[in-house]
Amino acid sequence: MAAHNVGPGPVAFAIDVGGTGIKAALVDAEGDVVETSRMDTPVDRAGNGEAVLDAVAEIVTRLESTNPARQAESGAVVVPGLVDDRNGVARHSANLHWTDLPAAEILTRRTGRRVQLMHDVRAAGLAEVELGAGQQYRNLMVMAIGTGIAGAIFVDRRIYSADGYAGEVGHTVVRPGGVECACGQRGCLEALSSAAAIERRYAELSGGAVEDAGEVIARAVSGDGLAGTVWTDAIENLAIGIAQVISILGPEAIVLGGGLSEAGDLLIDPLRDRLESLLTFQRMPELVRAALGAEAGMLGAALLTRRSSGG
Amino acid sequence: MAAHNVGPGPVAFAIDVGGTGIKAALVDAEGDVVETSRMDTPVDRAGNGEAVLDAVAEIVTRLESTNPARQAESGAVVVPGLVDDRNGVARHSANLHWTDLPAAEILTRRTGRRVQLMHDVRAAGLAEVELGAGQQYRNLMVMAIGTGIAGAIFVDRRIYSADGYAGEVGHTVVRPGGVECACGQRGCLEALSSAAAIERRYAELSGGAVEDAGEVIARAVSGDGLAGTVWTDAIENLAIGIAQVISILGPEAIVLGGGLSEAGDLLIDPLRDRLESLLTFQRMPELVRAALGAEAGMLGAALLTRRSSGG
Repeated sequence: MAAHNVGPGPVAFAIDVGGTGIKAALVDAEGDVVETSRMDTPVDRAGNGEAVLDAVAEIVTRLESTNPARQAESGAVVVPGLVDDRNGVARHSANLHWTDLPAAEILTRRTGRRVQLMHDVRAAGLAEVELGAGQQYRNLMVMAIGTGIAGAIFVDRRIYSADGYAGEVGHTVVRPGGVECACGQRGCLEALSSAAAIERRYAELSGGAVEDAGEVIARAVSGDGLAGTVWTDAIENLAIGIAQVISILGPEAIVLGGGLSEAGDLLIDPLRDRLESLLTFQRMPELVRAALGAEAGMLGAALLTRRSSGG
Repeated sequence: MAAHNVGPGPVAFAIDVGGTGIKAALVDAEGDVVETSRMDTPVDRAGNGEAVLDAVAEIVTRLESTNPARQAESGAVVVPGLVDDRNGVARHSANLHWTDLPAAEILTRRTGRRVQLMHDVRAAGLAEVELGAGQQYRNLMVMAIGTGIAGAIFVDRRIYSADGYAGEVGHTVVRPGGVECACGQRGCLEALSSAAAIERRYAELSGGAVEDAGEVIARAVSGDGLAGTVWTDAIENLAIGIAQVISILGPEAIVLGGGLSEAGDLLIDPLRDRLESLLTFQRMPELVRAALGAEAGMLGAALLTRRSSGG
């Protein structure tokens, strides 16, 4: 973390709220991350979204109590779901029980500091573009492929959010009428090629549980035919979905992040092969592995504290 | 045409080079179109792209000879294919025999006036955004559905071209492994839902020729079951393709232009129905018919003469 500096500015807190854990950091006036803290995302038994708001307020207090000399003047919080960055509203974050919640305003009131809000995948994308694998491109997509699939779109190096609706590449239909997706549609990319989908399909076909998608890939590599089929199909569908993005956006690069990207060349090499055969006149983008790993979201929050708007 | 004013600026020529015809206009200092001219796009027997360059130079001379008092200081030319607007290079325009041709530079030399180049669909989109059906939206796509299918993407009302590669929505795969497309891929939207595809499929299934896609639609409306199937399938595939755009870009509106949009509500009403059933959490954009018809490309060229770059 110390290697990444987000630039000078006010002391600020940067918080990444995930489905299972909350990561927080304090950014000092020089732009270095001086303290981090972590807690489990609380289960919101009341179902009103308060539990997570309380947890964020608590982690801010905790960060500062260990750093009495450094009091944050502002902060940024990044969350999953459908997020209107510009207006600081969480439109829909199922895991957090946040629906049309003006979270930036509420957290500003609770913490007494100006808080900005951003979508977690866009924040991770921002970090990759500013500090990571996307530094040399103007027009690109940073994709997170994990439990779900989503993308952060950059146009001339500026994040494009479309009131929070952009980048839902996990829900483009790749196989019309195909396997059911959690969103209610059929044949969505996320239902076919996410890490969760790969685990699920292998477990279904083999009749046994598997630890994670990485294990399916490892089995495929070591000659397990069933795992090979599951992995090949996932790559093929991922290539079709990414080819859609390429035809529409013509990006210079696709930066691949999220859990599945840990497969590295085992993901990127066959994906490149399949994309090359799917594209005809379109520009083949560079396929690049994300550089910042699981810290990308929090670094994106830290970068956001150096900006006036999550726009 | 007189109703559309592109704003004050130098006297300029605006030329829309199509596969079959070339339309030209002179834009006066007040921004009104004072003269138009038309010629057939020449057949380039030499296959070196010169024929169309000659034709453009000739139509400029012709425009000015009828307006000796108004000599153009600059101009803009819009062409089909894959066009790098910013650098003025036609990467690939099959009909014009232009490949990696620095057309802006060549036409600047030939006409003695600074010439800008732009993709015809992006120019038409620019006209719809500035003067037509897209005026009230920030983030939108203007689609041309005719012989082919392409889109012009606007981000915060600025055209997004990605070095000319953006907007190839006609070549997103909607039916993997499906019908062959002219681009070499299978199952592309253009091969399924363009006006040309509708005509072709109906002719194949019915064993008889049909005048155009409009006739297929008219037959569908009047109870021809075969025409009904062809039209319903075309709408379904168009909805899947547009739903991909919606998931990726989250636009406020899709403006529908090109020959097929002349079907008006016969296109828009069933398309909206299908989209509403395909989208789950995504934002349903407004579906709007293009307002400027076949003049959109030339009006876009006229607007381009008021800008410093086609960027």
